[in-house]
Amino acid sequence: MERGVTTRRQLLSAMGMLGGTAALYLSMTSLGHASETQFAGPPGLSGARKGASVIVLGAGLAGMLAAYELRKAGYSVKILEYQARAGGRNWSLRGGDTYTELGGATQNVAFQPGNYLNPGPWRIPHHHRTLLHYCKAFGVTLEPFIQFNHNTFVHSSQAFGGKPVRFNAAAADFEGNIAELLAKSINQKALDEAVTAEDRERLLEALRGWGMLDKDFKYTAGLRSASHRGYDRPPGGGVNGAPIPSALYNLHDVLDPQVWTSMAFFMNHEMQTTMFQPVGGMDMIGKAFAKQIEGLVTQNAKVTKIAQDAKGVTVSYQDTQTGVAKTEKADWCVCTIPLSVLSQIDTQLTDEMKAAIQAVPYSGQVKIGLEMKRRFWEEDDYIYGGHSFTDQEIGLVSYPNNNLFKDGPAVLLGAFARDLGAFRLAGMTPEQRIEAALAQGSVFHPESYRKEFLSGASVAWSRVPWTLGCCARWNEDTRKEHY
Amino acid sequence: MERGVTTRRQLLSAMGMLGGTAALYLSMTSLGHASETQFAGPPGLSGARKGASVIVLGAGLAGMLAAYELRKAGYSVKILEYQARAGGRNWSLRGGDTYTELGGATQNVAFQPGNYLNPGPWRIPHHHRTLLHYCKAFGVTLEPFIQFNHNTFVHSSQAFGGKPVRFNAAAADFEGNIAELLAKSINQKALDEAVTAEDRERLLEALRGWGMLDKDFKYTAGLRSASHRGYDRPPGGGVNGAPIPSALYNLHDVLDPQVWTSMAFFMNHEMQTTMFQPVGGMDMIGKAFAKQIEGLVTQNAKVTKIAQDAKGVTVSYQDTQTGVAKTEKADWCVCTIPLSVLSQIDTQLTDEMKAAIQAVPYSGQVKIGLEMKRRFWEEDDYIYGGHSFTDQEIGLVSYPNNNLFKDGPAVLLGAFARDLGAFRLAGMTPEQRIEAALAQGSVFHPESYRKEFLSGASVAWSRVPWTLGCCARWNEDTRKEHY
Repeated sequence: MERGVTTRRQLLSAMGMLGGTAALYLSMTSLGHASETQFAGPPGLSGARKGASVIVLGAGLAGMLAAYELRKAGYSVKILEYQARAGGRNWSLRGGDTYTELGGATQNVAFQPGNYLNPGPWRIPHHHRTLLHYCKAFGVTLEPFIQFNHNTFVHSSQAFGGKPVRFNAAAADFEGNIAELLAKSINQKALDEAVTAEDRERLLEALRGWGMLDKDFKYTAGLRSASHRGYDRPPGGGVNGAPIPSALYNLHDVLDPQVWTSMAFFMNHEMQTTMFQPVGGMDMIGKAFAKQIEGLVTQNAKVTKIAQDAKGVTVSYQDTQTGVAKTEKADWCVCTIPLSVLSQIDTQLTDEMKAAIQAVPYSGQVKIGLEMKRRFWEEDDYIYGGHSFTDQEIGLVSYPNNNLFKDGPAVLLGAFARDLGAFRLAGMTPEQRIEAALAQGSVFHPESYRKEFLSGASVAWSRVPWTLGCCARWNEDTRKEHY
Repeated sequence: MERGVTTRRQLLSAMGMLGGTAALYLSMTSLGHASETQFAGPPGLSGARKGASVIVLGAGLAGMLAAYELRKAGYSVKILEYQARAGGRNWSLRGGDTYTELGGATQNVAFQPGNYLNPGPWRIPHHHRTLLHYCKAFGVTLEPFIQFNHNTFVHSSQAFGGKPVRFNAAAADFEGNIAELLAKSINQKALDEAVTAEDRERLLEALRGWGMLDKDFKYTAGLRSASHRGYDRPPGGGVNGAPIPSALYNLHDVLDPQVWTSMAFFMNHEMQTTMFQPVGGMDMIGKAFAKQIEGLVTQNAKVTKIAQDAKGVTVSYQDTQTGVAKTEKADWCVCTIPLSVLSQIDTQLTDEMKAAIQAVPYSGQVKIGLEMKRRFWEEDDYIYGGHSFTDQEIGLVSYPNNNLFKDGPAVLLGAFARDLGAFRLAGMTPEQRIEAALAQGSVFHPESYRKEFLSGASVAWSRVPWTLGCCARWNEDTRKEHY
């Protein structure tokens, strides 16, 4: 069997990110997650030699999408998947699900029907064009994911007396103080050399309007600042309709990193609105993809070796249900196995490639879902979706974007921990994690958090048997050296 | 018939904003629109004398809600409504609707089934607690209204060469320049007296992190600024995965008022996220309210006189279908007629009250709906909901928040004009308004705007026969003097 080099090049260039051999293993892991604004419709694959075969390793979104497009182009396609489920990191935990992590701890999820935790991806930016395209093509209904909510909380253990404050109040005070200080500098002639006279006038006007400064360029408590930061009593009708402004926070607290990191968070390209989520849980996407490639997937297949020669590729795997060792041969192989796992598999990769694979750190985020008896964050605190950030280990509490206003139990994201916080939470038992999430999250909703708690579930990605981490954390250095 | 003063006081204090006589006429117009954060559940009305009657003038949300609660409390309630429709300003125009404005111009709305323009209210803030309460109680399903979208446009005829720019790019450059200039001032010791040494350090760190400054506290083109303002080519996978940063706008343009007014807009209390809209059109609320008070409303009733004496209230009205003059008597009267109309009705109000009524200017906004063959703003520009602002008369183009990703025609809000722009558009024929909206809105979507246009509809509130204006524009002065 001879493989046509031309066909291979066409394949590579047409799919853009798909590799026929190990040469492009790496990039596969990001399909459906990156590069979307370059997306201009599905690839126009063609020229498959009659009977040419491809074996796809991994039935996550990348593997399933590769299989879908390759089969459409005329290839004979098979997928090997380690789990007894397609979808990969596209995953939702629901009541009745059982999950055993590395280390052996097993959780039996007890959420009410319809409730879920998305342990992995959970929000889709408007610029992830590839994923949005296939969601529509495959009938996945999307609803808005409320990313930015002015009425959530910001909590720092180092500021505001350790009490959470509303995002709008903290952000308004940050902007107001910045505006006042810059206006003062301008009026003190400190910027006469840097900025033209005309632009200094424009700048002063902008600072007053954006930062809600008064006529003397001061940021002061009053109805003007309250219209951004919030009122003690908002304007309304009736005999008590007159608004009462709110007091300002002091500059030292307002400069706490939790404030400006929260503000900058929302301006981050990957975090900007509008964002989406599938109606019914993130795994609706994986399920819709799986439906498209029904019959192609061999589940419970643990790949142990990938060997290639002039005739093609041989993949050795073990059936994890029976223990039987098997092999699968094809002309081509598309590997979507996470690098953290791939680095432990017997391959013929070059030393350079192996170094690249091992250089990519996989992050070990921890997510914790907490089911509460009622939506007290909506009913008592007027918070509908969005995130309350904290400098505690849990990182944030995120409020559900589905079934807003609904009575009955709902699942909060009680932690989305990274770095050291994730490391600590991953080291705990599932029960200890829930306790930590309740203790820390109570800072935002002290009256209700423990009182309304029903049950919880957690996923520490460093303990997920089939990924050993959540997502590849390329940085500028590793990208330059290895990509 | 003697009216119990105690009962009357209880009624007033229990409803908070409801008046039994003209004394509280004014406040009724704002029920359901204001004072919501003071809302703590429906009023606990009680003590209605057996057989006591109330006549409610106007079947907008305020009138219907008053009728609903008063009937529940035991009163005998009737409503007089000028239109042949309940809901008042809570209104959606749909295909098949006919609307005749003052001046006689009639529009036959030609939108596709399911599409609509909300000429009046169209978005519900999370702090409008009263309205949210009754939406839930009356079964109105709400969906998120996407108020804040980083990927919309900002257009100024005076900046950026007259071309629209993306909000995220303009806002990032505004913040970056502010941060750089303030950092420069601090490093030049201009603020040593105003800010402590410790806070100056915190401030510098904040400016670098929030404003995406480099290590030298400069805001420069590069991957760091691009992560807020957007990339020329965003980071992705594949062989072309390396991101390409975008060039910065110049300071003079970035200081254009359209930029900072857009930024400040989103920080305004009334405009902050999370916001909602009813699934299916704003009038779903009016319809749900109307269902609750079925049988109480007399439509086509034009009130001509409101007279009160010791025995009660007599309301004279004309049946606009038959021309017959009629009267209705009751112990009490709740008036929700817009002040702009009430000022033309024969009443026994005190001179002070009449002065108050006439002192309240009603704004004359203009909204224009444009039905387009397809959602080119989503498909071509990746804009899902939100507003693109312009300094042209139309004020903005707002993108629909319903049926995102759907194929087929959809209705854009092609204008939400105020002040001088509204005045000009209101002076045009409906056809001329559509042409103006197409001409001006094309600045955002030059390739598609005219090409995809199907039909339009407009409402100039100064020409609406039953309100003569959109909403009362209290300001601090008129509030102090007359409220």
